[in-house]
Amino acid sequence: MELRRFLSSRTALMRASQVRELLKWIGRDVISLGGGIPDPSSFPARDLREILDDILSSRPEVALQYAPTEGVDELREELARFMGRRGIKASADNVVVTAGSQEALELLARILIDKGDVVFMENPTYLGAIQAFRIYEPRMLGVPLDGEGMRVDVLEGKLKRARAQGLRVKAIYVIPTCQNPTGISLSGDRRKRLLELAEEYDFLVVEDDPYSYFVFEGASPPPLKSLDTSGRVIYLSTASKVLAPGLRVGWLVAEEELLDKVVTAKQAVTLQTSTLSQFVLLEALRRGVVERQLPRLRKIYRSKRDAMLEALDEYMPDGVKWTRPSGGMFVWLEVPEALDMSALLYRALRRYKVAYVPGTAFHVEGGGHNTARLSYSYPPVEAIREAIRRLASLISDSLRAPQGAS
Amino acid sequence: MELRRFLSSRTALMRASQVRELLKWIGRDVISLGGGIPDPSSFPARDLREILDDILSSRPEVALQYAPTEGVDELREELARFMGRRGIKASADNVVVTAGSQEALELLARILIDKGDVVFMENPTYLGAIQAFRIYEPRMLGVPLDGEGMRVDVLEGKLKRARAQGLRVKAIYVIPTCQNPTGISLSGDRRKRLLELAEEYDFLVVEDDPYSYFVFEGASPPPLKSLDTSGRVIYLSTASKVLAPGLRVGWLVAEEELLDKVVTAKQAVTLQTSTLSQFVLLEALRRGVVERQLPRLRKIYRSKRDAMLEALDEYMPDGVKWTRPSGGMFVWLEVPEALDMSALLYRALRRYKVAYVPGTAFHVEGGGHNTARLSYSYPPVEAIREAIRRLASLISDSLRAPQGAS
Repeated sequence: MELRRFLSSRTALMRASQVRELLKWIGRDVISLGGGIPDPSSFPARDLREILDDILSSRPEVALQYAPTEGVDELREELARFMGRRGIKASADNVVVTAGSQEALELLARILIDKGDVVFMENPTYLGAIQAFRIYEPRMLGVPLDGEGMRVDVLEGKLKRARAQGLRVKAIYVIPTCQNPTGISLSGDRRKRLLELAEEYDFLVVEDDPYSYFVFEGASPPPLKSLDTSGRVIYLSTASKVLAPGLRVGWLVAEEELLDKVVTAKQAVTLQTSTLSQFVLLEALRRGVVERQLPRLRKIYRSKRDAMLEALDEYMPDGVKWTRPSGGMFVWLEVPEALDMSALLYRALRRYKVAYVPGTAFHVEGGGHNTARLSYSYPPVEAIREAIRRLASLISDSLRAPQGAS
Repeated sequence: MELRRFLSSRTALMRASQVRELLKWIGRDVISLGGGIPDPSSFPARDLREILDDILSSRPEVALQYAPTEGVDELREELARFMGRRGIKASADNVVVTAGSQEALELLARILIDKGDVVFMENPTYLGAIQAFRIYEPRMLGVPLDGEGMRVDVLEGKLKRARAQGLRVKAIYVIPTCQNPTGISLSGDRRKRLLELAEEYDFLVVEDDPYSYFVFEGASPPPLKSLDTSGRVIYLSTASKVLAPGLRVGWLVAEEELLDKVVTAKQAVTLQTSTLSQFVLLEALRRGVVERQLPRLRKIYRSKRDAMLEALDEYMPDGVKWTRPSGGMFVWLEVPEALDMSALLYRALRRYKVAYVPGTAFHVEGGGHNTARLSYSYPPVEAIREAIRRLASLISDSLRAPQGAS
């Protein structure tokens, strides 16, 4: 029986993530620079084993039971303290625990976006956010980045135009530190200017912050939420990069007035986040496991970033450019206009045995055909070098031969 | 700053669950017959502790890592086998793992429901389904139940009328075994008739099945999915009642054609279900922990049901009726028309120290003011008796005094 005829028209707005599709290639002879997948050697497995053993012997009747939709109270308190150490003033009431930050994005989109509302995003931006927002049909407008992050001057021009056109600007979605997919951080001056614009043009700021906990050089810039005086910044983060993604625990920090709606929305989506995972994060925070992770993560990913940048310097042909991230997991690659990195992906996987994510996926208003995201988080250093060598061959060969000829 | 003005118009469709609100009263001097919360003494804590220890020592790099959106392959295979033992023919490709069955309901609503589509439901039905569906704005039409479950003859009449009115009937949502909130099971003849009607009127059947694993008396009736010959039954279930709700693992069984869309939708909602929780369920299935649970659960909940039915017989005044469930966690109570169980709830909590869920929450087309759901799953036997005694006092006192007088 043909079942497609039962599908909602909404399904036409859904697109499968190329990153997730790419995951299927990992572990074969393809080296993947695809997903932002943590290095499994970074997992504090022994600590977590001990934590789980303690939880299951001392509090199984709580850790295996239903928990409140907003999250386990003790964890919300611990997260508020954790946020406090990053300059964010929050009480447990300002924290809601989510099933990874993907669910946080879904919930925010659900409670905020009406069809046609303008949401600004960095261009390129995190594709999980594009996916979460898309089905609610906002107008997603992109703001380009340079070496200091989002061009807030360009944003201002676009805000003026939007106002003149009578559009409703609801929010901006921004990853200010070690941005996904470019690795770039927003400068201090621009952070301030962005918040001024939010006041002036009266919109919300959704700050996604998975990576700022392990910036490689210098101090981590202050989160926008720590500079927020009017309550219009909604902060979200996750345990995926600082502890383990398999737990699926993220959190939102915002005003209670908004979180009330988030909680009501979450009842209908997942009811609550895994209680067991919440207790793992709770104990990992309490016992200092997360804090001890941070210097380790900095070391692991710095050496991998260095390996990728060195290999790029060594192998890439003229005309190819890339970012030099100060943290996070990604380098953003730009090849000559003549090449289409989406069109080249199949050949990359089949012949050159290397995976990346084509840049178009990260763009909200088209474009980016000659860009790609390269992640250095998962493969060992030697594999990163080899992957860049392969990718450079693909690009060199393709620049020499007209595309489609092979 | 007033933030409400940023909310989407969709938020007006969201309603906080009274069951979740009630959870806040548990553990004080109120005895709760509210949520369908498993008895924590039923959790196989020692087995799960051992499983977690084994997983974290043997495969931490996988169990703490990202996993495919559709679920861990080994778990999908194990679930297909588990389903096979219940007469459902499925391969791993027919299984998608979800963040509890709440997410399964959200995903199905998302991929199936266009505004105005007709979805039939038992009336009363599971309120989590009402919540999940509501924001997609279907016409939810109710079908009453009698002692043999949903009145399929009434359904047929409504289908005819819907067809005459040119309405699009997309699906029926049904909990055929030990229904929530009534505890009633659909008879064998009606199961067959329901599937015939699905063919004749061309709609999907969403079968929610959390409770059939531990029916107290006799054999568990065959799942509708086991009788499905055309692929139009979508089956969903959960580890919440047979293992532990804190894991937040559910699963869907359906045709791949539909599951493809479910997976794309899930990428945007939670990306994937907790890998750690998936490995716990995987090992609990492999080691027979789940199978060993079932007779234990049957015993625990049968004695609690018996205690509740006995106390109802003993304490309830004339004019009060209730169901006699053959399994599951709920008794459905009907009091004389003059009483409004929603209006009485506050008094019940404050003065009589007993919690229940007012029946209106489970109704899709209004009504049910004189009904309530009573859960016997959580409190100890003695507390169940006491709670029913208190509830009976509330009802007797209220029948004597005009409402609102105290």
